[in-house]
Amino acid sequence: MAPRRIGEFELIARYFAPLAREFAGAGGLRSDNAFLAADARHDLVVKTDTIVAGVHFLPDEKAELVAARALRVCLSDLAAGGATPYAYQLALSLTRDWTERWVARFARGLAADQRRFGIVLCGGDTTGTPGPTTISITAFGKVARGKGIGRAGARAGDELWVTGTIGDAALGLLAAQGELKSAFLEKRYRLPQPRTTLGPRLVGIARAAADISDGLLADVGHIADASRLAARIERDCVPVSLAARRLLAASPQLWGRVLGGGDDYELTIAVTARNRAALLTAASAAGVTVTRIGAFTKGKGVALTVSGQPQRFAQSGYAHF
Amino acid sequence: MAPRRIGEFELIARYFAPLAREFAGAGGLRSDNAFLAADARHDLVVKTDTIVAGVHFLPDEKAELVAARALRVCLSDLAAGGATPYAYQLALSLTRDWTERWVARFARGLAADQRRFGIVLCGGDTTGTPGPTTISITAFGKVARGKGIGRAGARAGDELWVTGTIGDAALGLLAAQGELKSAFLEKRYRLPQPRTTLGPRLVGIARAAADISDGLLADVGHIADASRLAARIERDCVPVSLAARRLLAASPQLWGRVLGGGDDYELTIAVTARNRAALLTAASAAGVTVTRIGAFTKGKGVALTVSGQPQRFAQSGYAHF
Repeated sequence: MAPRRIGEFELIARYFAPLAREFAGAGGLRSDNAFLAADARHDLVVKTDTIVAGVHFLPDEKAELVAARALRVCLSDLAAGGATPYAYQLALSLTRDWTERWVARFARGLAADQRRFGIVLCGGDTTGTPGPTTISITAFGKVARGKGIGRAGARAGDELWVTGTIGDAALGLLAAQGELKSAFLEKRYRLPQPRTTLGPRLVGIARAAADISDGLLADVGHIADASRLAARIERDCVPVSLAARRLLAASPQLWGRVLGGGDDYELTIAVTARNRAALLTAASAAGVTVTRIGAFTKGKGVALTVSGQPQRFAQSGYAHF
Repeated sequence: MAPRRIGEFELIARYFAPLAREFAGAGGLRSDNAFLAADARHDLVVKTDTIVAGVHFLPDEKAELVAARALRVCLSDLAAGGATPYAYQLALSLTRDWTERWVARFARGLAADQRRFGIVLCGGDTTGTPGPTTISITAFGKVARGKGIGRAGARAGDELWVTGTIGDAALGLLAAQGELKSAFLEKRYRLPQPRTTLGPRLVGIARAAADISDGLLADVGHIADASRLAARIERDCVPVSLAARRLLAASPQLWGRVLGGGDDYELTIAVTARNRAALLTAASAAGVTVTRIGAFTKGKGVALTVSGQPQRFAQSGYAHF
């Protein structure tokens, strides 16, 4: 027997309205619209991301981790934009066999991240789907008017920096799929850590930034393309975790995944040499490590060197279809 | 042989970036984030809606009409909120067998409605899905600060009004499914007409409003519930089109669909008797008919009368799962 399930309005009232309690303009989710009070000193920074079960997360992933992923992939973009996040809308499409238990755990995951990142639900939509569970989040952040950081602002001569360590998530996906064993790497894949403490501090320091969601080479390429520049990356400089370093020592071919795989949710940043000290101070205040891995130059495309020697690599980056 | 298809970035550049050309803060969709300039005189009104192929639209619906529906269901909510729409984000999940031809027609549908409604794409996400085509739109409108119209503002004694004619879409769905024949009703289903010309004029006139997406009885019920009131509706007063009237004369049991079916995208409005003349003036200026169908009273629930006689009805309204 299928368990009796609750209807949409009850579902919203029970699990999602509590998440919107502190957002006056959401009217307890009883109105269709959310009303956001804006002001003339800030720009609203908006980012929409969709995750689909079996495509962007493992079909049997814990509901709490699905919620965290859905939110964090957006917060990571807001961080790259220099924005301080404050609200989001949730479009949740549930499979035909959804359970209230799953929704309760999903809502618990949202609630935990609301506290962690200082955000609040302000509206959305719940629907059924004959397909896989699909979640679109539209996240809102604020940045001082006109100061938002985009991809297009890098100039030739700018230094190229990254946060944290690169490639853990791509290797962690292999771990989650049982192809290698590392609790550390698996967690790095399953629970992204968007650099929200650093993002707003990059305003006035970074010329351009992007989060690393499609893979380091691809996302540096996106900045280079948008800025009409080339980028070069020295592989010896790319920061990798101890767990990743061990795997790479045994299987150097994994460098392809480290540099090309997605889901890191670190930031890649263009700064002038002059702002280097300011970047280091901001990173230190944010509790985030930053590492210089290359530079932007005139030209086109991303060039990789290994110990200074040019290296060929097959494209890479996450292909969305 | 499967036709060669283009990648995500090419798809965005070719079909979606042109739709964002006039929105400076979207950076030609080359950045992840959109930057919206807000101001202190307005609230931003935000609404997210998801439509899924085979659930919210017919699986073989024309791509242009899918685009129109995806946008218009959101614009309808913004209209109910009193907002003037100006931008939207698009989360598009494409089936594995998507074709460029479909996307081109979908983008053409978006472009036509951008011109019609004065809106512009400001960002979004495209992904693949093993499930059906799924589209989430987050639409943005503006309303004078604090003047947005919600569901919760009705008071006992307020009059209950609706725009246009009710039930055409529910009957039109039957027509689209081949169960009855009426080109007029079928079009009313396939191409919703959100009351965007009236919505902003309701500011300062309507105490509460909602769009009729789940069905007249359900959506009036949502206003009543949110306002902690009862509502009564006299069926003889409910405006129906000539095509619907003919069908109802032959098959009175269709009243259930007319009053309970969804997808009308008309507005239901609570106004004081004192504001009745202002409502009529606003409707006339907007080129929209409005009809008084009942009132809000103390109590709970929605009561239906037919020629003054209380009527029982099975609960109704579109169930989302």
